[in-house]
Formats: sequence, structure tokens, C-alpha cells
Amino acid sequence: MSEILDVTAGWLTVDELSSARETLPILYVEAIPVRVDAAGRVTGVGLLLRARPDGSVSRAVVAGRVLYKERIRDALIRHLEKDLGPMALPRLPVSIAPFTIVEYFPDPTVTGFHDPRQHAVALAYVVPVDGDCVPTQSAIDLAWLTPEEACSEVVLAEFSGGQDRLIRLAMAYGGRLP
Amino acid sequence: MSEILDVTAGWLTVDELSSARETLPILYVEAIPVRVDAAGRVTGVGLLLRARPDGSVSRAVVAGRVLYKERIRDALIRHLEKDLGPMALPRLPVSIAPFTIVEYFPDPTVTGFHDPRQHAVALAYVVPVDGDCVPTQSAIDLAWLTPEEACSEVVLAEFSGGQDRLIRLAMAYGGRLP
Amino acid sequence: MSEILDVTAGWLTVDELSSARETLPILYVEAIPVRVDAAGRVTGVGLLLRARPDGSVSRAVVAGRVLYKERIRDALIRHLEKDLGPMALPRLPVSIAPFTIVEYFPDPTVTGFHDPRQHAVALAYVVPVDGDCVPTQSAIDLAWLTPEEACSEVVLAEFSGGQDRLIRLAMAYGGRLP
Amino acid sequence: MSEILDVTAGWLTVDELSSARETLPILYVEAIPVRVDAAGRVTGVGLLLRARPDGSVSRAVVAGRVLYKERIRDALIRHLEKDLGPMALPRLPVSIAPFTIVEYFPDPTVTGFHDPRQHAVALAYVVPVDGDCVPTQSAIDLAWLTPEEACSEVVLAEFSGGQDRLIRLAMAYGGRLP
Repeated sequence: MSEILDVTAGWLTVDELSSARETLPILYVEAIPVRVDAAGRVTGVGLLLRARPDGSVSRAVVAGRVLYKERIRDALIRHLEKDLGPMALPRLPVSIAPFTIVEYFPDPTVTGFHDPRQHAVALAYVVPVDGDCVPTQSAIDLAWLTPEEACSEVVLAEFSGGQDRLIRLAMAYGGRLP
Repeated sequence: MSEILDVTAGWLTVDELSSARETLPILYVEAIPVRVDAAGRVTGVGLLLRARPDGSVSRAVVAGRVLYKERIRDALIRHLEKDLGPMALPRLPVSIAPFTIVEYFPDPTVTGFHDPRQHAVALAYVVPVDGDCVPTQSAIDLAWLTPEEACSEVVLAEFSGGQDRLIRLAMAYGGRLP
Repeated sequence: MSEILDVTAGWLTVDELSSARETLPILYVEAIPVRVDAAGRVTGVGLLLRARPDGSVSRAVVAGRVLYKERIRDALIRHLEKDLGPMALPRLPVSIAPFTIVEYFPDPTVTGFHDPRQHAVALAYVVPVDGDCVPTQSAIDLAWLTPEEACSEVVLAEFSGGQDRLIRLAMAYGGRLP
Repeated sequence: MSEILDVTAGWLTVDELSSARETLPILYVEAIPVRVDAAGRVTGVGLLLRARPDGSVSRAVVAGRVLYKERIRDALIRHLEKDLGPMALPRLPVSIAPFTIVEYFPDPTVTGFHDPRQHAVALAYVVPVDGDCVPTQSAIDLAWLTPEEACSEVVLAEFSGGQDRLIRLAMAYGGRLP
């Protein structure tokens, strides 16, 4: 085991993660960042633009693995900060119950949610952010759209893996499905 | 109809409200104000102290009627401001679905929630507040307690109308029931 | 007060209801009846066909007022039985928290949900029914559609008052929004 | 890789599972089986009695791992059948969103939910069962208690790993916390 792994006890090497991905569902958190008005109504949806392994680009939401011994809330904060920067000021909900569960399968016909690498189960949240957001790391861009724009056919077509449906589920949850 | 009612079209005179209370369920909103940490965990619960009609005092949550042609979110903001002051900065949830419905009956044996004046149905929310709170209007005091303190027997005994149970339901929803 | 009202203490005469409708939000329950498979997945949506006051017909969900001193669950069961018959065997959810709140206004531009008669606030539930359903009372017909059919443009166009959106919110809640 | 694993592609050997448990959060589902009346109110709670590795016995809820490429609803049905027998007739909720997330850590001080073997994250559901339940496999007994009995101090003391709190959260969700 490498020095790095001694420090970050319980994290996986690339090989170990690759092996786990063939044998276990992998736990994720996903967050749809939103802007809200003073009465809590969703006024904007933050969509990332990411480069995909095949060279194409795709709209995406904030997402990432829950690490060994990491709490759900801490994983959410970590990924929100990783994707939106340290000044985003996310407001996690009072209840840890996600508004939906997204089941990604290597086979796209099982649920419509598709991840060629793995069986991933994501706890999904809609998270108001109050502060300045700057796309970081793997994200090329961050765009704020109205709920109507985010649910338009042209924008929904820019998602991959079935995440266009996740956006519509999130807007329905917030009462903002057009 | 008085001049005031001409202006506030659709509001009720005292007599009309008294009559409606004998014939219809009256719609309320209730909010349990909370303080949360950076990861959204509830760290404090705001409890009001109110004088009751019989001269006793009682712990209470933010509560009030939804007016004719008033939206739920607007009623919540209005009552939060009325009870906590204009600087409370409440954060209403993304979804308008309440975490529970509280049914108050004149007969205390029906649901355990009791209002001698009326059959009231309250949409209940847990609402993080970020700003300065000052008890206003009918509230004598506002105290911030930890979830453990708020659910202690001595504090729960200071509520009336069954609202001690509402506090415990709210803490359960937030994962903070001791 | 009429003899009937002596018996059904607290119910409203037509005049009184008409008066209340101009001064108070009126509390409703609404239920979207569904068929589910053995694992609880929604496979069918029950849509009523109702005659409207203007002579047209419209798709509709199960809906009705909550009466004075009536509990929410009892109102739901009463309206489900009224609209689907006594053999429908509805399965109300474990939690009384509705999946959404629908705010109907005389002005259709406020929320998109519209009721020309009144300001109505409906607690909305998705309710699996296991038994035989027969449209009764004001309903002309009851049709079972797949979630895809129920969310098709041609079917959604047959609703009024904005209830097409309620159907889509219900399907999103059940993870079956196409 | 053994012949069994060729057949049940993606399942783990005991060694592999043991290794995964030291490096990844393991995904579980948990179900609190309940009896409900005709209006959906919880009237009884089904509690299992299980032998623990150390020879003691403990109250428990229905629980188990989500397997590779297994859907959440299928995992729930499989574990309900495993623990309550094939005639239990469980009624899974319309929405796959769990009522809470339970985070079990090897260190009991992190969340109060404790599993010495692993970091497990459980999606928790309250599931009405209509049929005949017989404790099977590792369960010694199945007892049906009222919500009041299930939340009594003497019964709560018979749980381990913090699951007494899960029972109270489930009763709060169903509006039946005493």
C-alpha cells in the first residue's frame, strides 16, 4: 500500500476501485445547484459543462462518490466545493432524505440512467447556493438557466446518461416543471 | 363592509371568521425555526414564549392563518417576519410539500393536537433562519435550544395543544431526535 | 339553520359555502389513483372524465373538500370511494405529508392552477388502488393509462385548470415521468 | 473465480466482501414492516428477534445489502421475503425516495448508528405488509407491537447498533411517535 494510502486510510487505488466497480453498487451523491428567491422559489438552475472520456462535452450536475467513513453531508459539501468553488455557500436541506434515488446501470435499458463504468446508486438533492460559483476541476463551464430553459428540449439533449430526466425530476420536486 | 375590508378584499371581519371557524377547517402554516451548521445539520431550535388567552404562558412555534388569495410561501414569510422580526432571513425549502400535516381539533382526543377555537389544518415546515431574530407581537420571548434540550421532558411540558409532539416530529425529520 | 344542518353539524349551506369561498382558502384533498406492480412501480394511472359546468368534458383526478371536523385520511377515503366506488381498495401512504401542495386561484396567472370559483389549497397524494374501480357520481368514465400515455401531449391537453401539470408532478414523484 | 461466481456474475466471495468493507461504504436497504388500517394509519410494527455474532439476541428490522446490478425495489422485496417469508405481501411506496438515510459507522460516536464490521449506508423505508409473516432464516421470532409498545423504553432497549432510534424515526414519519 502506498504512502498516500497510509494517510488517506481506506481510500482505493485505481485497481481496487476498478475491481469494486465490477462487484458492488457504488454509492454517489448528486446535487442540482439552484438559485432561489426570498420565498424559496427556484429561479435558476446551475448546469455544468464537462468533457467526457470520449472527447465530447455534456451538461452535468454536481456528482461524486461517497468515500469510506465519509458522512453523506460531508460528501455533498466536498463535491459542491469541488465543482462550484469554495465560495458557493451551499444550503443543504434539513432532512438527509434525498428527493430521489438515481440508479445508474452499465445497461442503459434497465432504468434509463446509464453509466458504462459501473452500477452506481446516487442520493440526489436540490441545493440552493447563495454565493459566487466558479466552475472548477473537470468542469469547463457553469451556466445558470431558468427552470423553463433547463427543461427545454435543446438543453435536455445536451445531457448524457439519462441526466436530462434527473433535471426534470428536480424541477418537479421544486414545483417548477414547466 | 368597512373601508379596511374594501381595501384588503376578501379578509374576514371578526364575526365572519368566528362563523367560518364553526363550519370549515381553517388553513394554517407552521414553521419550526432552526439554526443549522455549514453542512445543514440542525444545531438549534427557536421556541417562542406566548401569552395564552387564559393568562398562562406557553412555548410555541411560528404559526398563523393562510389568507384568502395568499400563497403558501408568502404566508410563511409573513408569519416568520411577524414572529421573528424582519431580519430573521428565513430559508424556505425548495419543495412546498410540508414535512407533516398537523390536524388541530376542538376535541383533544381526536389527534392529540388541540385547538379549542377551531378545526385547523396546518402545513408544517422546518425553516433554517440565518439572521437576527427578535420576538415580536404576541411573543414574549424567543429562546434557542439544542435539539436535546428542546426534546427534554421539562421543555416539552411547556407546550400546549399537543405541540410538544410537533417539535419531536420536526427533530425526527431533521435526524436530530435524541 | 335547516334540519339537515342540525344533523350534519357544521356543514355549510350553499349560501354559506359561497360566502366562505369569497373570504377564505378552501382546503381540498386530491388523489391520483395508480396501479402498481408487486415491487410498487407505477404501471397505470386512473383518470376520470368529468362534465364541467360549461357543458364541456375534462380529464380529472379524485378531488374534494375536507369537511369541518373531518380528518385528512377520512376525507381521502370518502372522495376515493365517491369517485371510484366502494370496491377500489385504496392504499393510503404511511405518511400524511402530501407529495405536493396545489394552490388553485381564481386568477390563472398566479400559479398556473386555476379554479374560477375559489382559492383552493389541495393536499395531493398518489394512491395505489388494488380493487375494482367504477366511475361514480359526477364522473362519466374512468380510464387506465400507462404513465407514458398519461403524460402524452394529447392526453395532457384534455385536462383543465392546470391539472395536466399535477399529473406530471405525480409521475415525477413516482419516478415515472417519461 | 469460482464456478458459483461465474453464474452469479458480480457477487462477492467472502474475502472480496471483507476487503470491500474496509475500503468502501456498503449500500443497504432497511424496511420497518407495519400493519395499517383501512385509512393507512400504522397500527402495528413488526420487529424481528435476531441472534447476534456474540451469542446475544437483539430486536431488528428487515435489512440487507443491495447486490451488484440489483435494483433498489428488487433488493427490498428480496430482503422482505427473506425475513418475513413469501406470503408477507409487502406494499412498497410509490416513491423510491427513502424516508431517511441511516449511516452506520464502525465508530459508534459518529452518528449513533453503529456497525462494527463496516461503513454501511442504508436507504430506509416503512413498508405495510398485508399477508402472513413468518420469521425465516436468521430471525428467531417476529413480534407485532403497537407503535406505543415499540417506542417504549423496555422495547427500545432490546435493539442494538442504534436501531431504536430508527424505530422512533419511522414512527415519527408515520405520525405515530407517542
